[in-house]
Amino acid sequence: MSELKNDRFIRALLKQPVDKTPVWMMRQAGRYLPEYKAIRAEAGSFMDLCTNPELACEVTLQPLERFDFDAAILFSDILTIPDAMGLGLYFAEGEGPKFKSPIRTAADINKLFIPDPEQELKYVMDAVRLIRKNLQGRVPLIGFSGSPWTLATYMVEGSSSKTFSKVKGLMFEQPKLMHKMLDKLAQSVASYLNAQIAAGAQAVMLFDTWGGALGTEEYLEFSLRYAQQVRSLLKTDVDGKKVPTVLFTKGGGQWLESMAGIGYDALGLDWQTDIHHARMRVGSKVALQGNMDPITLYANSEVIREKVGSILNKYGSGTGHVFNLGHGILPDMNPEHVKVMVDAVHELSEQYHK
Amino acid sequence: MSELKNDRFIRALLKQPVDKTPVWMMRQAGRYLPEYKAIRAEAGSFMDLCTNPELACEVTLQPLERFDFDAAILFSDILTIPDAMGLGLYFAEGEGPKFKSPIRTAADINKLFIPDPEQELKYVMDAVRLIRKNLQGRVPLIGFSGSPWTLATYMVEGSSSKTFSKVKGLMFEQPKLMHKMLDKLAQSVASYLNAQIAAGAQAVMLFDTWGGALGTEEYLEFSLRYAQQVRSLLKTDVDGKKVPTVLFTKGGGQWLESMAGIGYDALGLDWQTDIHHARMRVGSKVALQGNMDPITLYANSEVIREKVGSILNKYGSGTGHVFNLGHGILPDMNPEHVKVMVDAVHELSEQYHK
Repeated sequence: MSELKNDRFIRALLKQPVDKTPVWMMRQAGRYLPEYKAIRAEAGSFMDLCTNPELACEVTLQPLERFDFDAAILFSDILTIPDAMGLGLYFAEGEGPKFKSPIRTAADINKLFIPDPEQELKYVMDAVRLIRKNLQGRVPLIGFSGSPWTLATYMVEGSSSKTFSKVKGLMFEQPKLMHKMLDKLAQSVASYLNAQIAAGAQAVMLFDTWGGALGTEEYLEFSLRYAQQVRSLLKTDVDGKKVPTVLFTKGGGQWLESMAGIGYDALGLDWQTDIHHARMRVGSKVALQGNMDPITLYANSEVIREKVGSILNKYGSGTGHVFNLGHGILPDMNPEHVKVMVDAVHELSEQYHK
Repeated sequence: MSELKNDRFIRALLKQPVDKTPVWMMRQAGRYLPEYKAIRAEAGSFMDLCTNPELACEVTLQPLERFDFDAAILFSDILTIPDAMGLGLYFAEGEGPKFKSPIRTAADINKLFIPDPEQELKYVMDAVRLIRKNLQGRVPLIGFSGSPWTLATYMVEGSSSKTFSKVKGLMFEQPKLMHKMLDKLAQSVASYLNAQIAAGAQAVMLFDTWGGALGTEEYLEFSLRYAQQVRSLLKTDVDGKKVPTVLFTKGGGQWLESMAGIGYDALGLDWQTDIHHARMRVGSKVALQGNMDPITLYANSEVIREKVGSILNKYGSGTGHVFNLGHGILPDMNPEHVKVMVDAVHELSEQYHK
């Protein structure tokens, strides 16, 4: 494997000194890029693209041709695990993810099995290996999964939800059954991320997209507890190098202190949380990744540069910051605006690393 | 006007001793009640019902016949002000509020006028007067409005939004114009709430439904600042009695300290925020209203009673707590479960008021 030519991202996550603040972007490979749309049209469905390692590799690398990103992220979906468990993931056009066979009964939960990443999820591992090879050490590759709680929400609801009434119903009325499901998911996620690391992922991120839908008590018991279980099972020492780990709970700004105490190297921040306050609250425990409001990218260059500058200034001097959006880029955003953001991060951050 | 027979709600908001924790529920008059649906079918559209003081009065009083609520809340909508400004509020079935003439240009903002509550919003004032008369002092009547920021989101987007790209675009690129609009809205909201108070509302609540979509800096500048302006313009001393004020920012749990410092007597809490931590953070500055996850009402009686008990216990001893859901009840919930919640609040809270 090639040595990393640009290791800013890894170093910042591990709170080691860097020359500039590294930057990447959630959904950086995706529908806002015309070259992505061309491949997608060729591939067929979104899942046809995800399950084709050559095409997944190609779209993973696309944004690196346009922008000076400091990391690549595997092109995949947060819901590959329940798909591998046999629930049948599909994407109805413009509707978000759905499952053909959602969890309906205790028997459905009892028969859930822990997928073998090199069997049922081999297409992901093949993509990781191929991307890693094609990156040639240019920037590190990020692997990822949905968190146990977030996987459970889709598996029980059958789709995204506004109210989460089915999965919360299970949680409130049959907490033991819910814990059984989450334990299986935590084991599956850890096994999956470990396999991504073995295949070449140089950092891994857990996306807890729907943790913020919970009350504090339920967040700690049904979401964070299983993020911790995943972390405890991860093998993050590879050939004497550390694979950094990132935990992102959208809407979790109130719980940063708890999130910072379970072993992840970094926390993802949504845009609602002030990154200066976040840094004060988590101290030196973890690095922080974020957190520009994605909607800023609709604005003009001056506004984008100003907001980038403001976030860098709020984080302040020293390492431990990876610049990102607070959530994914939207399909109708202008790629030129992404370039403005990325270049502004590198240019305006040097002063904080002297 | 009749003296209040049950003033628990008012006393708790003012942090005066009470015998039991008062309880009411967001959307307590509404679609989960068959008797509401009957009136609604008779009235025609949602707005036909809102603009008919006799029917608005009837549905406001309906839940008091079934449940031992400690307050009534005016049956109306948070968006009556922009409707009075001529934007044409309507409700497409199952789609949420929309405006026929959303704000599109600077000229649209320049020509916004401050409605006269006894002219353009006379139907609301007539409803307040009629409800107050018919309540005969049984429980206090709550008046309300959407917050300036929340009104602005609907006025610019033309409907509810997932991304708020239009209104945030205006905010990011033309902040002065946005401030001009919010200033007019703050004046309008204050005038409207003052008129509700003059007509008989005994407490008023500002619903900042979409403040939580903002970053911290933008929340303080574009939402909280105008909630403060509204508060500073409110006339809350009526015949020697104080009319308590409540501020509710959904998704605002991170900003409670700031919210507690602008003059409102109480803060509404969504269900994500732990009410024990919230009380520790705001100290004796404000009372707290909330905060059971509405989805709890789908669960069985034992679960509902347990969750009610847990929230009462987290708030702990002493006054300053009004029990509520963290958001509105949903249309397909069982009214019997509401009774379980209300009775549990009264029964289980006595121990905290000895």
